[in-house]
Amino acid sequence: MTTYRAPVAEMAFTLRHVAGLDRAIAEGLHGDLSDDLVDTILDEAGRFANDVVAPLNTIGDRHGTPLKDGVVTMPPGYREAYRAWTEGGWNALPGPVEYGGQGLPILLNAACIEMWNSAAMAFGLGPLLTAGGVEALSRHGSEELRARYLEKLVSGEWTATMNLTEPQAGSDLSVMRTRAEPAGDGSYRISGEKIYITWGEHDLTDNIVHLVLARLPDAPAGTRGISLFLVPKVLPDGARNALKCAGIEHKLGIHGSPTCTMVYDGATGWLVGEANRGLACMFTMMNNARLGVGLQGVAIAERAYQQALSYARDRRQGRATAAAEGASAIIEHPDVQRMLLTMKALTGASRGICYLTAEAIDRAHRAPDEAARRAAQARASLLTPVAKAFSTDIGIEVASLGIQVHGGMGFVEETGAAQHLRDARIAAIYEGTNGIQAIDLVTRKLPLENGAVVRGQIGAMRLVAERVLKEGGPAFGHTAPRLRETIEALDRATSHLLKALGSNRPEEALAGATPYLRLFGLAQGGACLAQAALAANAAAKAGSTDPAHPARIVLARFFAENLATAARGLEETVTGGGGFLQDGALALAG
Amino acid sequence: MTTYRAPVAEMAFTLRHVAGLDRAIAEGLHGDLSDDLVDTILDEAGRFANDVVAPLNTIGDRHGTPLKDGVVTMPPGYREAYRAWTEGGWNALPGPVEYGGQGLPILLNAACIEMWNSAAMAFGLGPLLTAGGVEALSRHGSEELRARYLEKLVSGEWTATMNLTEPQAGSDLSVMRTRAEPAGDGSYRISGEKIYITWGEHDLTDNIVHLVLARLPDAPAGTRGISLFLVPKVLPDGARNALKCAGIEHKLGIHGSPTCTMVYDGATGWLVGEANRGLACMFTMMNNARLGVGLQGVAIAERAYQQALSYARDRRQGRATAAAEGASAIIEHPDVQRMLLTMKALTGASRGICYLTAEAIDRAHRAPDEAARRAAQARASLLTPVAKAFSTDIGIEVASLGIQVHGGMGFVEETGAAQHLRDARIAAIYEGTNGIQAIDLVTRKLPLENGAVVRGQIGAMRLVAERVLKEGGPAFGHTAPRLRETIEALDRATSHLLKALGSNRPEEALAGATPYLRLFGLAQGGACLAQAALAANAAAKAGSTDPAHPARIVLARFFAENLATAARGLEETVTGGGGFLQDGALALAG
Repeated sequence: MTTYRAPVAEMAFTLRHVAGLDRAIAEGLHGDLSDDLVDTILDEAGRFANDVVAPLNTIGDRHGTPLKDGVVTMPPGYREAYRAWTEGGWNALPGPVEYGGQGLPILLNAACIEMWNSAAMAFGLGPLLTAGGVEALSRHGSEELRARYLEKLVSGEWTATMNLTEPQAGSDLSVMRTRAEPAGDGSYRISGEKIYITWGEHDLTDNIVHLVLARLPDAPAGTRGISLFLVPKVLPDGARNALKCAGIEHKLGIHGSPTCTMVYDGATGWLVGEANRGLACMFTMMNNARLGVGLQGVAIAERAYQQALSYARDRRQGRATAAAEGASAIIEHPDVQRMLLTMKALTGASRGICYLTAEAIDRAHRAPDEAARRAAQARASLLTPVAKAFSTDIGIEVASLGIQVHGGMGFVEETGAAQHLRDARIAAIYEGTNGIQAIDLVTRKLPLENGAVVRGQIGAMRLVAERVLKEGGPAFGHTAPRLRETIEALDRATSHLLKALGSNRPEEALAGATPYLRLFGLAQGGACLAQAALAANAAAKAGSTDPAHPARIVLARFFAENLATAARGLEETVTGGGGFLQDGALALAG
Repeated sequence: MTTYRAPVAEMAFTLRHVAGLDRAIAEGLHGDLSDDLVDTILDEAGRFANDVVAPLNTIGDRHGTPLKDGVVTMPPGYREAYRAWTEGGWNALPGPVEYGGQGLPILLNAACIEMWNSAAMAFGLGPLLTAGGVEALSRHGSEELRARYLEKLVSGEWTATMNLTEPQAGSDLSVMRTRAEPAGDGSYRISGEKIYITWGEHDLTDNIVHLVLARLPDAPAGTRGISLFLVPKVLPDGARNALKCAGIEHKLGIHGSPTCTMVYDGATGWLVGEANRGLACMFTMMNNARLGVGLQGVAIAERAYQQALSYARDRRQGRATAAAEGASAIIEHPDVQRMLLTMKALTGASRGICYLTAEAIDRAHRAPDEAARRAAQARASLLTPVAKAFSTDIGIEVASLGIQVHGGMGFVEETGAAQHLRDARIAAIYEGTNGIQAIDLVTRKLPLENGAVVRGQIGAMRLVAERVLKEGGPAFGHTAPRLRETIEALDRATSHLLKALGSNRPEEALAGATPYLRLFGLAQGGACLAQAALAANAAAKAGSTDPAHPARIVLARFFAENLATAARGLEETVTGGGGFLQDGALALAG
């Protein structure tokens, strides 16, 4: 079984030349953050991910997280690794300085999140929830709650959870039933059952801070009657709160991450934010977590790629050419090369999209003027569902291809390739299914500023294609025309959907949402890879002999000529495939 | 958890109106087989699959097949079910009459294979190997071997295995090492280790007949020095042969099917066919098994679809329309409908392709004149890799969509949706990986009769598209133009590949093989669904009020407008994506 080696150089290149970290630093957005410090942090994170976290991946899968008498035992090694990880300051990296965080860019942390999750997704998942908790408390928590909880959450000494789902309330939170009764002393008594609570119970930390959606007694029905509460496992006075883990799911993957049924039985909690505005607070956590989940897709794709690449180099079968002496490494066979290049190109494309999204979030917080902040926020809003859904679909596809590269060995659990597919599968579901992301993209994000936000983003993609046309040499092959066709297909599909929405035919937009998101991902991902290739081309022209530079050009070209080619078909599906709205039920009635 | 209900009516319709069973019966190809008998057999098979086999699916997954002291214990219920299944005559259905078989069409058996494998793929898998053994022995075995083994294999009283793979010899059998030494009495002593032997050991039958590839002492190197041997677990004198199961793989799926490491330690065996011609004999088994594996893809897709459909009808979340009172069943949401229609359309398309292939095999055996037999054989050869690879890719995709429809519940093993993906994953790998199928299609099948075979098949697809244009009313939407575009894209891609092969640029054909096979599957699958829709249209015009008829039209339309739209992009990839042959290694070197 191969282990993981964080692709630090590729990450740094993407941060700088695709997501624009260099420009942001030059503009002074990140204070005295230097190039050197970025490299040092990435190197250190890579070392930690490789040496400490990666070995936990198989262990977590095999041991799972048994529950006994309300106590969840995490897999061997998790406790030590988690402690070392928090003591290394990794949880605090993007956290607010006033609560002990390092205040570093979300973008830099995105690369780190990718590393932790490549190394062991079940381990990397918990801190994503804590980060969401930090975000929600920072923005919406009272001064008292912030003072009591934020420092320990920022450091990771305690972890946080998100409690949304109930058996009858999944994608639709309006039918949630968990109740909160005022206790008279400013606190509330929370009662109800929540399911699918990631890291709801574990033995890594002394306390767990649950952020729980519940209804006040006088709350209006529906989503406007939901409030957010902070409900700690251990109360400030040291007593155990009236909550417990009542069950653990037996899941397809991420066995090292406990997915808990949490029962709140009059547990003490405190309101976060305004009464009945809980959903807005929770969306603060969700948006943050959505990018994190998108990064999990990138992460698992990267690890699956590394493993398949290593196998394909070692395994010898057949002669790739008539001239070959003896069996060739299977990497020499064109069909295996196609699989590996597809894996690498899709991984790189989704990495680019996720990092771009992170950069927009940073800029939304840090840009000096209000207009720039607002524009960046709109861009982050537009890109977040694409980052989440496209990247997690890619995670599944690449993990499945990784199995295929292994042949029969891929189906044997010992090899480790199958675990990646099992782990990857959840990322398309949690934090809002990918269908929900597509609906969000189409119905809420495309109409932003009357379509100006999406048009702006498409315009930025076009500039990349034009630069490839001008600057790219023969090594770029048909990258420019293919990328341009992809972008124009996206543009036309966008017009179609905006028109449907504007003509009060929302169902037509809903019908095309999923293929539209895929099309968006292909165009944006292709633009990201092309941008990296342009930077590589410039570096090579300037004299760099780093073989990674020509490799980046090959990859952008492969993506444009082999994968982005799906764009026109997707456009046709978006614009002409909605016929099933009238009669689809008929075909399913049988 | 939903169980399985064999879609007997849909299968019968596909047999008759897509694969042409009616015509074959009318032509007298199947003796006195009547429509009524076909219906009776399908009904009975469906009942058996639903009631006896389907309940084994979860049990097999959970219990697995533990190995202890060389003995493999099959999951609870398997033994009784297998006995009832063979006693019901199901194993003997397509078997040769002279050995107790019923001599029924491969095509009819294809529908049955689909049912057994939908009901429990791990259970349905074993008999596929036995069928391959029957085929190989019937064609290549000596009279003595046939007399001794065929009757019991035809009835299923004994099972058969295929022993090809060794640790160093997977897709490339030329480096196989297992040896066979003449014992002087006409038998051989077989020594070596074989891996991935499906049902290599089990407790369902008193004997297991291993068909083993091995090298004779004087054999030439490479694949021309491989011979096939029959090596029974129990020798004719009742003694145990010198072979054993030395290990069981811990696999991603099909836990109810033991995948064995078999050690032959001077085991007694007999030559099947000519010395050094073992690969040809084994390909007899393989071709048969390849269609069977394709049917497994259809089978798992059908079961995953049924389960997702049932969940989508029950689960209520959100309001599908502003007018909805309370939560809607999720099947009413456009995005969920898209998923379910995609599942159903892909399943139907791959079913059509597999049944068409089975019909060609029947015709190759039964057509009255030699020219018709040869033409049918060529068609079967062309379609087999598509049936195997396209359908098994579809099996994976549909099973994964099935999980997605379930949301969080899909990731919880208890639901059963995840098992389908785990089970489906192997079918793209065994009996020749899907990459190998694509290479077979492009390099060996396209050149058949200088391209006339593939041109003929494309011509047949065109006729369907033309009929839709003429006969299809408004309900067919854009089915005709989309289908025609798909077929023309296939035609152009075919020309490109034939030209590459004819110009001694085989690597260019190899590079495009996988997207080409996908394109072929979309065109052929779309034509199959359109043909079903045309027959349904005719039936409705003739007065039938069966709601399945309009449903078939909707499905063909959905496929053409939403899925076949990928064709032009695939064509572009096949014809313009080979740039990576020159420099792909560069991108993977990093």
